Amino acid sequence: MTDLSALRERVFRANLDLVTNGLVLLTWGNASAVDRAAGVMLIKPSGVDYTAMTAADLVAVRLADGEVLADPAARSLKPSSDTATHLALYRAWPGVGGIVHTHSEYATATAQAGCGIAALGTTHADYFHGDVPCTRALTAAEIDAGYEAATGAVIVERFAHDRLDPLAMPGTLIAQHGPFAWGVTVEKAVYHATVLERLARMAVHTRTLNPQAARVPQHLLDKHYRRKHGPDAYYGQR
Amino acid sequence: MTDLSALRERVFRANLDLVTNGLVLLTWGNASAVDRAAGVMLIKPSGVDYTAMTAADLVAVRLADGEVLADPAARSLKPSSDTATHLALYRAWPGVGGIVHTHSEYATATAQAGCGIAALGTTHADYFHGDVPCTRALTAAEIDAGYEAATGAVIVERFAHDRLDPLAMPGTLIAQHGPFAWGVTVEKAVYHATVLERLARMAVHTRTLNPQAARVPQHLLDKHYRRKHGPDAYYGQR
Amino acid sequence: MTDLSALRERVFRANLDLVTNGLVLLTWGNASAVDRAAGVMLIKPSGVDYTAMTAADLVAVRLADGEVLADPAARSLKPSSDTATHLALYRAWPGVGGIVHTHSEYATATAQAGCGIAALGTTHADYFHGDVPCTRALTAAEIDAGYEAATGAVIVERFAHDRLDPLAMPGTLIAQHGPFAWGVTVEKAVYHATVLERLARMAVHTRTLNPQAARVPQHLLDKHYRRKHGPDAYYGQR
Amino acid sequence: MTDLSALRERVFRANLDLVTNGLVLLTWGNASAVDRAAGVMLIKPSGVDYTAMTAADLVAVRLADGEVLADPAARSLKPSSDTATHLALYRAWPGVGGIVHTHSEYATATAQAGCGIAALGTTHADYFHGDVPCTRALTAAEIDAGYEAATGAVIVERFAHDRLDPLAMPGTLIAQHGPFAWGVTVEKAVYHATVLERLARMAVHTRTLNPQAARVPQHLLDKHYRRKHGPDAYYGQR
Repeated sequence: MTDLSALRERVFRANLDLVTNGLVLLTWGNASAVDRAAGVMLIKPSGVDYTAMTAADLVAVRLADGEVLADPAARSLKPSSDTATHLALYRAWPGVGGIVHTHSEYATATAQAGCGIAALGTTHADYFHGDVPCTRALTAAEIDAGYEAATGAVIVERFAHDRLDPLAMPGTLIAQHGPFAWGVTVEKAVYHATVLERLARMAVHTRTLNPQAARVPQHLLDKHYRRKHGPDAYYGQR
Repeated sequence: MTDLSALRERVFRANLDLVTNGLVLLTWGNASAVDRAAGVMLIKPSGVDYTAMTAADLVAVRLADGEVLADPAARSLKPSSDTATHLALYRAWPGVGGIVHTHSEYATATAQAGCGIAALGTTHADYFHGDVPCTRALTAAEIDAGYEAATGAVIVERFAHDRLDPLAMPGTLIAQHGPFAWGVTVEKAVYHATVLERLARMAVHTRTLNPQAARVPQHLLDKHYRRKHGPDAYYGQR
Repeated sequence: MTDLSALRERVFRANLDLVTNGLVLLTWGNASAVDRAAGVMLIKPSGVDYTAMTAADLVAVRLADGEVLADPAARSLKPSSDTATHLALYRAWPGVGGIVHTHSEYATATAQAGCGIAALGTTHADYFHGDVPCTRALTAAEIDAGYEAATGAVIVERFAHDRLDPLAMPGTLIAQHGPFAWGVTVEKAVYHATVLERLARMAVHTRTLNPQAARVPQHLLDKHYRRKHGPDAYYGQR
Repeated sequence: MTDLSALRERVFRANLDLVTNGLVLLTWGNASAVDRAAGVMLIKPSGVDYTAMTAADLVAVRLADGEVLADPAARSLKPSSDTATHLALYRAWPGVGGIVHTHSEYATATAQAGCGIAALGTTHADYFHGDVPCTRALTAAEIDAGYEAATGAVIVERFAHDRLDPLAMPGTLIAQHGPFAWGVTVEKAVYHATVLERLARMAVHTRTLNPQAARVPQHLLDKHYRRKHGPDAYYGQR
């Protein structure tokens, strides 16, 4: 088996960063990363307290079939109950290297309201190139047949239907559930989950002041997104 | 008298965890646990500052009649003014081992609004198997005849009327007052009080965005509750 | 001059507790206490940073005429710009020993809304025996003739008109300005300012959920107030 | 080149104070100061993490033409992507010595709502002598021709049109973007950005309670502003 120790350490820190960034209450939420060459995903164990967790607690899962892999550097724990959702997204989207799921307060409240997060400002446009979608509800049959895999499937379905590029729209809300976010790396996934929560907070306040607040126009959306992404980006020290 | 020192230490820590979890302002709130074999409840003393409280300050009360018991490990303080409410719940519900009362901000605000907490999402369904109820108001006669015992009685009345299992609905709101939460242990009671406050926060935000937000459908409510509870649970490391 | 060093230390700590309790941003807010035998009020100096302030910075002011008194234990600073308001309240209400003024976030926002804080729950009833009032606006003439003294006068006017006992209603909102709170001691004044802010927060959330939320009925208001105050009080270790 | 080391240290601390004061998430926001005699602006580098930034990372930019200047005390980093906005304000307003831009939560949410911050209370009047304006949206042509300079231009345009004195109105909202604040020094700019965020928070709560809340009358606005500013000021130890 490939040496996953460096990635293991990064996924461990990413999980702790969810707590530091205020996205996690109790044991809720999880971060994962994939080693595509090895065909392995590392993910938080199920229901383990963040304050007690060590890097050795992360669980290695085979990308192809979800089998838990023995890793001499790891204890033998059960992976996150959301494992099948993570796997579905990694399989559908080859450019994604890390995924985060949380029940962060405002993003979850927005998912409970059944709506996405409209692109109301440039903070949004800097990271999400359009409205953050909210998936359709799962049917009872989908829930019975494999709830977590079906959750991944409706995300992929929605992005395909709307022709959304997951790297330009690095997150979504699951109706009546909460947010997923992702990125090229697990660190980017944590970053996007952090931004998503802030956007959700700001959208609630904006709607309180002005229920009819308009979206940013397309040229401003494009301008801000391209300041930070793509060949013409000029933000940061690149 | 039975040695209550281990339970005393747990109830002490549970009371402090109310502060750590952001549920307490000033001296508000209290946690208790029961030793059913000994017929004794341990509860926070009335009006004592959390920063000054020690394990020896917890008061031992006889479950049968509410009499304060002499315990060589304890100082002689008055028990919480909410003692009779705790006792009423322990007597009615043999499966409950710990109880928490707080005036946590959003749960209390919801109780002031006179409404329960609708099951708007899977975070709710993970712990509360349906809407969290809000009790009816007490009559003036009930208040005069023994306010705190009557508060317990209206909780028990509501759960009996709605055929709610207190272990599947481990909390309630008291109209115009605030939340109570409970569980098999005092640690679970603290956990449920923490979740209840978060659910109340999220419900306020959800209602702000969408006053007509729908409840989770029954099959999703059942699915999430049973992921974490009962014979088919698969969350965590059990 | 009477030795004010013990009271000076208490007022100093009370001012710092405003910061600890989250009631203060920047240099906003001030706490004072009165030594009625000496006829002297001690108050925060104007515009001094809480992180730099020492007990010696508190200013001694003569209750009778507002004259700043030389105190060998003190530096010679200007008293709070709100000094005349504090003096007006001490002169009108002999039972009051400490006063706090803040611009705490939700109480100030409520004052800006021009409304008091309705007694919506038992948390409120535990400390404020009825709705917290909001004073009338000052006239331009009152503002010109002595703004801070006039602010005190409209508070006293309102309490006299409504026959409110300042010890049973230990705080108020000033229209379009913010809250004042007081008590028998400066520590009680800080306590009531802390409760007032929490009540204001909860009232905003309650109104968001239910704009028609009802006040607590009179018997419940009386019951909770008398659990904590007066001859029949049974809360705490008294 | 003039020795900028003292100003460099102040701008460095001002940037860190944005974090301390809760105005910054991730790398968002920047503070600058100008040395008018030297014709140089010092500003945060683009996209640098606040926890890793040192004083040597601040970038010196020529006021006249925006050219990055070599400074032996500095690393060679790219200045903030908002540099052209800062320069436009310094050029238009000779009395301004420091500027801050943030995406602070409530001020940004208000900008997203497309409205300014009405002068609803005396906290507002203490620092902003009237409603905080919100600029018009930029046209697509303006965005294409030089987005950041155009952002500065619409601020200057609005202040000129409304005859606002930037020292009596030390901040603004940019429509669908966020706040800028400024002052005679960079420390004052941070102070005003901090107040602006608090005013935005309070205005949201006030509007929640009372959508028709009235502005402070002109005489109260003037009274509070002049307590703290101008020849008749009597707040503080001046």
